[in-house]
Amino acid sequence: MTATPGTRPAALDWSMGNCTIARAMGVLGERWTLVVLREVFNGVRRFEDMRKHAEIPRQVLTNRLATLVEAGVLRREPYREPGERSRHEYRLTEMGFDIYPILIAVADWGDRYLADPEGSPLTLTHRDCGAAVHLTLACEDGHELHSTREVAPRPGPGAHRR
Amino acid sequence: MTATPGTRPAALDWSMGNCTIARAMGVLGERWTLVVLREVFNGVRRFEDMRKHAEIPRQVLTNRLATLVEAGVLRREPYREPGERSRHEYRLTEMGFDIYPILIAVADWGDRYLADPEGSPLTLTHRDCGAAVHLTLACEDGHELHSTREVAPRPGPGAHRR
Repeated sequence: MTATPGTRPAALDWSMGNCTIARAMGVLGERWTLVVLREVFNGVRRFEDMRKHAEIPRQVLTNRLATLVEAGVLRREPYREPGERSRHEYRLTEMGFDIYPILIAVADWGDRYLADPEGSPLTLTHRDCGAAVHLTLACEDGHELHSTREVAPRPGPGAHRR
Repeated sequence: MTATPGTRPAALDWSMGNCTIARAMGVLGERWTLVVLREVFNGVRRFEDMRKHAEIPRQVLTNRLATLVEAGVLRREPYREPGERSRHEYRLTEMGFDIYPILIAVADWGDRYLADPEGSPLTLTHRDCGAAVHLTLACEDGHELHSTREVAPRPGPGAHRR
């Protein structure tokens, strides 16, 4: 996840052709936005790297990056390779970094229902111990929920009667 | 969440104009799909109810529902009101129900960054105790993660070299 200018992200060595996050968003909506974020979370931060690695059409990538920068999810950081013009790479803001649970939730669901028989090309692991990371549900009173059937939607603080 | 034919879902009494899930997906991609699912999770299962409650254009709703049924996320269930023709309502399949963590992750993020000052119109609560539900991160070795900074992406079982 920590790339310095000039180093090639390790994620570029791996095909994303069977990525279950992309498949989940193919079902769930406009998939390219989360795919762009998947790249950034994987340390792929430069336009041409993203375009080739994720096989995103150039104009789509331009638009998604602009939207994400405007929304405050990504910020542009200048860099310059020796002998080339100055370019920008894309970094997660704090708001962007907090999208990680969404990506993990999408990945968990995609892995369960849309993966190839061999499994997903990507595993999200605990940096300290290497074990796979998953989302669990807990309430503010400290109870762990064992099923989403235990969740009940209620009007929140901003609820208005129609 | 449990509506019987003929009962009006309580969620219909509440405005969704400041829904932070909708706002999050306005940033994150094609927002209507998760908005349709938000309605179904809230017990709003009928075409006209969804259309009016979520203010979704008719053709968009038709398309999103067809996609979700085809993908296996929703199934059609027939019902008939007295004196009217038979219609269908939309129910979550098991695959659909497992999308709940994605919705919760999107809601958590939307609540943090995109809510009105008064808060979100919707709270997801623990059915047993009423406390708000959130997602937490844990690894398969049983460690709780206190920050997404502790997550590291790694090639998974389905990773292929390019």
